[in-house]
Amino acid sequence: MGDGILRKIGLEEIEDIALGAALLGAGGGGDPYIGKLVAMGAVRECGPVTLLDPEEVPDDALIVPIAMMGAPTILGEKGIGGNEYRVLYDMVSKFFGKEVYAFMPIEAGGVNSMLPIAASARIGLPMVDADGMGRAFPELQMVTFTMGGMSASPMALTDEKGNSAIFNTITNKWTEELARSVTMSCGGSVSVALYCMSGAELKKYAVKNIVTRSQKLGQVIRSVKEMEEGTPEENFLKLSEGFKLFKGKIGDVLRETRGAFNFGKVCLEGIGEYKGRQAYVEFQNENLTAVVDGEILATVPDLICLVDTETFVPVTTDALKYGKRIMLVGLKCFEMWRSQAGLDLVGPRYFGCDTDYIPLEERCKGGRTDV
Amino acid sequence: MGDGILRKIGLEEIEDIALGAALLGAGGGGDPYIGKLVAMGAVRECGPVTLLDPEEVPDDALIVPIAMMGAPTILGEKGIGGNEYRVLYDMVSKFFGKEVYAFMPIEAGGVNSMLPIAASARIGLPMVDADGMGRAFPELQMVTFTMGGMSASPMALTDEKGNSAIFNTITNKWTEELARSVTMSCGGSVSVALYCMSGAELKKYAVKNIVTRSQKLGQVIRSVKEMEEGTPEENFLKLSEGFKLFKGKIGDVLRETRGAFNFGKVCLEGIGEYKGRQAYVEFQNENLTAVVDGEILATVPDLICLVDTETFVPVTTDALKYGKRIMLVGLKCFEMWRSQAGLDLVGPRYFGCDTDYIPLEERCKGGRTDV
Repeated sequence: MGDGILRKIGLEEIEDIALGAALLGAGGGGDPYIGKLVAMGAVRECGPVTLLDPEEVPDDALIVPIAMMGAPTILGEKGIGGNEYRVLYDMVSKFFGKEVYAFMPIEAGGVNSMLPIAASARIGLPMVDADGMGRAFPELQMVTFTMGGMSASPMALTDEKGNSAIFNTITNKWTEELARSVTMSCGGSVSVALYCMSGAELKKYAVKNIVTRSQKLGQVIRSVKEMEEGTPEENFLKLSEGFKLFKGKIGDVLRETRGAFNFGKVCLEGIGEYKGRQAYVEFQNENLTAVVDGEILATVPDLICLVDTETFVPVTTDALKYGKRIMLVGLKCFEMWRSQAGLDLVGPRYFGCDTDYIPLEERCKGGRTDV
Repeated sequence: MGDGILRKIGLEEIEDIALGAALLGAGGGGDPYIGKLVAMGAVRECGPVTLLDPEEVPDDALIVPIAMMGAPTILGEKGIGGNEYRVLYDMVSKFFGKEVYAFMPIEAGGVNSMLPIAASARIGLPMVDADGMGRAFPELQMVTFTMGGMSASPMALTDEKGNSAIFNTITNKWTEELARSVTMSCGGSVSVALYCMSGAELKKYAVKNIVTRSQKLGQVIRSVKEMEEGTPEENFLKLSEGFKLFKGKIGDVLRETRGAFNFGKVCLEGIGEYKGRQAYVEFQNENLTAVVDGEILATVPDLICLVDTETFVPVTTDALKYGKRIMLVGLKCFEMWRSQAGLDLVGPRYFGCDTDYIPLEERCKGGRTDV
């Protein structure tokens, strides 16, 4: 077993992972409170989950990412039962004629980082320390696995009532189309298994050790105020490897729901050292671009995160409200997203932003206010 | 093999079955021309299909009804490929871990009577001489199998592009809901396998020998003009066991598309012995009620059929046009539909018609114009 240490995810780890994954959600990925409750409920009932390093996974093992599809906000009302993961497990095992070796998350974010923990606890399987984004993205094909030519299909889907389906489609775009229709008919949120892969594929294309990174980021957020040296903000930026882009008060939030996505723009009026300056962030579920005084300081696929100026707790796009004080932080994305194939999938132009991708650290060379 | 005669469906049989099944479609079930082309194409390419009497089927055999879901009119544009039935066959076999013994139709009607012939020809399987309605109905749960507590699910679905899905749902209503969404996303028509059953269930709940009945009705329509005795109309009514309800010219057709169904009303002005009298027929895909001079002469589940006054060729609701001369004919429905369980599923009140079900032959005692 790799370094010989059996790593477990229990209640405390869940707290940290949920908080850190919400930061990596870059504005999207849902409310970590809801995700946390689902994961904690499962771990309380069935015990902690073993976290596997990707390198520990045999090449021929069947690895199954688990996620929810639909609007995370609906979960608060509709909930997730205890039986969905058994249904998904059975469908996938039957399809491949093979037992599932481990589950894994497909993306970071408050909800989808948590559900694979609940699935692993309930079925008694380990979870792999990896995902397919290293952040959150709005569309199903936006995973590193697409660059490996891998298919989202067969995709298994189930709702909390017990309805289920397994899709086998000709492209990932069709998987998105058909599964999205059924998701809407099931009431707006369902549990899914997709991009089922071998251990060998996992090792080649996954964003490795992202659960550990989430956990560390969560610990950072929870501990920066108690450190002896430096200000909490300095410590937060240093330990999260974040680029400070702006600090301001939310002056306006514009929202529009189009094609099942949340589009919008949040406008910030500078505070502290940014007094008198202006910034805005545009989003499609996740934050897409950060513009300060008319200059673009960050774009997708780099992570644009909004955190509370006092607690450093991440603020999702759902929770943006007039008057809230926000620090705008940039985080470097996973290296593979910066390749041409990566930028074709998730670069600024794909999202309709008329700019080339320039890495965050380049853009911030001039405008960056370093700590 | 039962009576020792191996019955085959070739090109000539297809002509008759399509014509007769269109009559049993009771206004719905789609254009027999399109259905015929699909079945004939398959039989020309792969040879004729063996028709099995339900009594010849072993009790433990896996029997799979094949149909299209969605709007039959879309088939004229979008077509049906050759590979859908292989996809359905593979999905169903895999799900049950068992080879499919035979296909069968789920309903009569111009299209759905024909596709199981195409499926049987292409896969090289026999087709059972039975269906689940003995006519056509607009909703998925409206089959005799529902009275036997059987489930539409698992339901396999595929489009002509190669996308496929298999649904496992908690009720037939949910199967309808989810499959309908995917059908819409796939462009409005898909091929499906549903109500998969054992030979024992088939023998208990199916409408037996309905393919043979369709074929005979087709022969009747084609031959009544050439008989030596009686008028063609007399012969048609006698041989089809039809009740003549009215004869008239179409004065108006009102149509409304609501919830993916065609609702409407066709108004008739009497001709010949009906001169000066009025009638109308209301429909939801299929014809629901026939009213002559304000008196209801027939309701679902009995069959209300509109045929051309000269050729006796059935006229589907899609083909209703101002000025067309029509004879309104009632046919008795399958006995099981007249039970309380049957009327709960498909009686007039289910379709929103405020009348009790009274058998066609009772209603026509006074008003019927016998031949």
